[in-house]
Amino acid sequence: MTFQPIPLDVLNDCPQDRFQAVLGPVFENAPWVCDMVWHKRPFASLTMLHDAMMQALRALEGDRLIAFLNGHPRLSPETLRKGTTAESTGEQTSAGLNALDPETTGLLGQLNDAYEARFGFPFILAVRNASLETMLASFQRRIGASPAAEREEALAEIRAISWMRLLDRVTPATSGGLSTHVLDTVRAAPAAGIGIELWKRLPSGNMECLATHQTDQQGQFATNGDWPVEAGDYEWHFDTPTYFARQGYATVERTYLGKVRIAFSVWNPEEHYHVPLLLTPGSYTTYRGN
Amino acid sequence: MTFQPIPLDVLNDCPQDRFQAVLGPVFENAPWVCDMVWHKRPFASLTMLHDAMMQALRALEGDRLIAFLNGHPRLSPETLRKGTTAESTGEQTSAGLNALDPETTGLLGQLNDAYEARFGFPFILAVRNASLETMLASFQRRIGASPAAEREEALAEIRAISWMRLLDRVTPATSGGLSTHVLDTVRAAPAAGIGIELWKRLPSGNMECLATHQTDQQGQFATNGDWPVEAGDYEWHFDTPTYFARQGYATVERTYLGKVRIAFSVWNPEEHYHVPLLLTPGSYTTYRGN
Amino acid sequence: MTFQPIPLDVLNDCPQDRFQAVLGPVFENAPWVCDMVWHKRPFASLTMLHDAMMQALRALEGDRLIAFLNGHPRLSPETLRKGTTAESTGEQTSAGLNALDPETTGLLGQLNDAYEARFGFPFILAVRNASLETMLASFQRRIGASPAAEREEALAEIRAISWMRLLDRVTPATSGGLSTHVLDTVRAAPAAGIGIELWKRLPSGNMECLATHQTDQQGQFATNGDWPVEAGDYEWHFDTPTYFARQGYATVERTYLGKVRIAFSVWNPEEHYHVPLLLTPGSYTTYRGN
Amino acid sequence: MTFQPIPLDVLNDCPQDRFQAVLGPVFENAPWVCDMVWHKRPFASLTMLHDAMMQALRALEGDRLIAFLNGHPRLSPETLRKGTTAESTGEQTSAGLNALDPETTGLLGQLNDAYEARFGFPFILAVRNASLETMLASFQRRIGASPAAEREEALAEIRAISWMRLLDRVTPATSGGLSTHVLDTVRAAPAAGIGIELWKRLPSGNMECLATHQTDQQGQFATNGDWPVEAGDYEWHFDTPTYFARQGYATVERTYLGKVRIAFSVWNPEEHYHVPLLLTPGSYTTYRGN
Repeated sequence: MTFQPIPLDVLNDCPQDRFQAVLGPVFENAPWVCDMVWHKRPFASLTMLHDAMMQALRALEGDRLIAFLNGHPRLSPETLRKGTTAESTGEQTSAGLNALDPETTGLLGQLNDAYEARFGFPFILAVRNASLETMLASFQRRIGASPAAEREEALAEIRAISWMRLLDRVTPATSGGLSTHVLDTVRAAPAAGIGIELWKRLPSGNMECLATHQTDQQGQFATNGDWPVEAGDYEWHFDTPTYFARQGYATVERTYLGKVRIAFSVWNPEEHYHVPLLLTPGSYTTYRGN
Repeated sequence: MTFQPIPLDVLNDCPQDRFQAVLGPVFENAPWVCDMVWHKRPFASLTMLHDAMMQALRALEGDRLIAFLNGHPRLSPETLRKGTTAESTGEQTSAGLNALDPETTGLLGQLNDAYEARFGFPFILAVRNASLETMLASFQRRIGASPAAEREEALAEIRAISWMRLLDRVTPATSGGLSTHVLDTVRAAPAAGIGIELWKRLPSGNMECLATHQTDQQGQFATNGDWPVEAGDYEWHFDTPTYFARQGYATVERTYLGKVRIAFSVWNPEEHYHVPLLLTPGSYTTYRGN
Repeated sequence: MTFQPIPLDVLNDCPQDRFQAVLGPVFENAPWVCDMVWHKRPFASLTMLHDAMMQALRALEGDRLIAFLNGHPRLSPETLRKGTTAESTGEQTSAGLNALDPETTGLLGQLNDAYEARFGFPFILAVRNASLETMLASFQRRIGASPAAEREEALAEIRAISWMRLLDRVTPATSGGLSTHVLDTVRAAPAAGIGIELWKRLPSGNMECLATHQTDQQGQFATNGDWPVEAGDYEWHFDTPTYFARQGYATVERTYLGKVRIAFSVWNPEEHYHVPLLLTPGSYTTYRGN
Repeated sequence: MTFQPIPLDVLNDCPQDRFQAVLGPVFENAPWVCDMVWHKRPFASLTMLHDAMMQALRALEGDRLIAFLNGHPRLSPETLRKGTTAESTGEQTSAGLNALDPETTGLLGQLNDAYEARFGFPFILAVRNASLETMLASFQRRIGASPAAEREEALAEIRAISWMRLLDRVTPATSGGLSTHVLDTVRAAPAAGIGIELWKRLPSGNMECLATHQTDQQGQFATNGDWPVEAGDYEWHFDTPTYFARQGYATVERTYLGKVRIAFSVWNPEEHYHVPLLLTPGSYTTYRGN
């Protein structure tokens, strides 16, 4: 994963062999997907490149789809021990599959056996940075799905895996942005001058503060254009207690909410992520806006 | 503040001099408030005791009220240097007034002068564990209030200060509880089996995990009776990503919200604090329930 | 539909032929479903009886399932002209299929032809009281589904149709209730004394007021036990402007929200329907509680 | 109220006597307010004209303020019987004060006597189109306020009364607009193609449908510029059941919410009123956006 990503416009100019050399590992044991889309260059965005690759994949039917799915390794400590692609090794290791206790190893083995017997291909999940709990929760739900539904889910996971691998290899053409908008629904008006911080999770797992600012007169703050947004985990922090004190809301009876923190994930750095906050001294609501 | 609080039923049995010895410092330089309520014993709860004391205070009018307010020290480094009551010393120190930079010291002095000239009594604020920002925000708002409104605010702050001092001295008679309730508003049904943690802020400022659990079939979890709830700062953490994975909501397009954390303050440990969470993959709402 | 429903305990005592006489038409052209569950009497609730019937149905596979689905008539004016079961006649008429304009008749015919060619059984939808828009919206979405997903949806619709037919024939054993709970999230406290009305849609389409009341000190109101709740369309009305005026929230700048009305449907009269309202002068939130 | 309003630019060109003839009755028995602002013409908006008038009024202090407040008539049937200004007659009649039952007349008389004895001026409330319940709720709350707070409230009501009278006399310079934005928080995406209606209350009390439309690809609809927005009561109606059916959310278990209706008031037709709706099959939230 120490690969240095190349710009999209450089990729757009690549001959076919170089194109495949860069993108080959994006789909596990399926470098042919690159060949299916090479002639469609130039791509205006990573999103469009990825959509084209997924479209090629979705044309697969019957045995050819099953064969492609079987190109994926089991999620298991044994896979890591025996060796697999560099990408799968990195992903499975990041989810802790190299350090499972014997009990979980046993449970996972049973789930894998049952899943493969039922569906005819290995359980596929985008595990990069996943927790063990999330992985097992998905496994236990999906093992009871219908075969048709489960093929859909496997493709959705492959969509996720390949997107993250693509981001490792190619720099997005354009950058989306992060923004927030705080509304004081007591006054039905923007919450201006509220202290905000934007934090991002580092590879180490720690959080780093990217920006410290205040909402403007419209209750808004946006990073647009200040720096390229990267995929990953973020948090907005809002200094609501100071705002409430300034508004005179923070009487004894009303002191209730502490600082508001909202954790969200940026999946596609070419998109904009708008995170509104509707605020009163006794409640708040957040959602992904647009 | 290393005083060991006594149980309420012991206080209820105290003779008048002992009663005043325990509660005297609750109102700054006004031990007479204790004498006004001693004959109303026994009190069924700390809340009722405090309400009785505040009622005695609210009977003050005109010059007597102004005199009582003037029994409070200025919020300033100079107060700490010259010495004041043990309680005010502890509170002003916890807000950092012993370590202000010269610029803030100067600003605070100007605000104090202007406030006292306008209202005829010092600026009173419940500063225990307050941040400098919150303190200045309150100051700047209140300096523009009308005299009548500002007397009301000063009394509201005294209500807060005296309540915290009372909790240092007397143990609540009964314990409220903490509870949460997660509703999945996609399915209009309880979110069962969602991992939750309850954290509390220690005197050091660090957070400590008090409980790790899962919501029950009704989407609920409550601490009722498990241990006495104390005043202070808390957080509920919800493992929403695992829940979404189990429900099949966490497709690529929908991955957006990270773990949900809700920070809230318990002000009155005799009350119950219910913190519902209304949840979808793309939004959530919380509020103080009842 | 002028059939007089019989009590569940009377049904529980019926011999098999009488049982089938009552419940036979619940599943279209499939009286055998009754025979599959008769021996499981007594049923503690209509919900349990219906679940048992649906379980019998869900055991059908392959050609037998397709044959059962083909026992349902087309949704079309021609079906009504040629004649079908009394139940289907009533349902299709209530959705206006007896009075379609020629253009819609033509569109519906094309959709039906395409759907049947694709899936091998007629389009099934619970149309009682449905609007033409809702019917066409479902049709246009489902015609693009996968065969497996579409069989699931057809069964979900049959679940709805049979439940409504069951409610025509048998009285629920127990009654759920309707309740509401208004929280003032400005004060983080119950909204007591707020005027509320409960309305129900009559067969004529008009709304009738069932109850006029005020929320109690907990901000709540419940009908529990006052009268048997029936399936159908309801509305809660909240006199929020008067509440805001009493609280002093309704200043010029804040006058914004009018009376709040929440429309909801009771599907299962054996369940409880709790409709909370989180309220500020500038916002509100409602959801199905539990 | 059959007065035909004149355009703001015409008013801006008026000589002082004509200016006062138009605006004189805006403040009850205080035509001098017009003279205080005439020299500040031209006004860019009605909002600015009104702000200037309110600013002149707020300069009143002590006895002069009390004298101005005493220029207002009592809210009572007796006022109507004896005769008062045309504006007050219209407003008090619209609130039903010409047709009170004897019991309410008696209660209102007692409240008026007590209020005037306490504060030294009559109870002032913007009663145009108010309900009796709202009027009495305000009265009973305000009679317990402090004199300083109550003078503030009286001025806030005069702000409301004079604004409505101003709208009767002068046409706004610019028109704000009405808009809505529906977000599907299940998918964290705009709810496109959802049927919406915009309704307005007529002077008769009935509602009239102004527009029938669908949200666009961004989930939005706006009236901007289509027609001049007028002050008054409005409703947005959303055909959520059809949207849910098209999305496949409306399974049996999920059928819960009916059509969503949101009632709101436009106070200032020079402003924009944005009404977002956050929607799931089991919940919704609305607020005044910006």
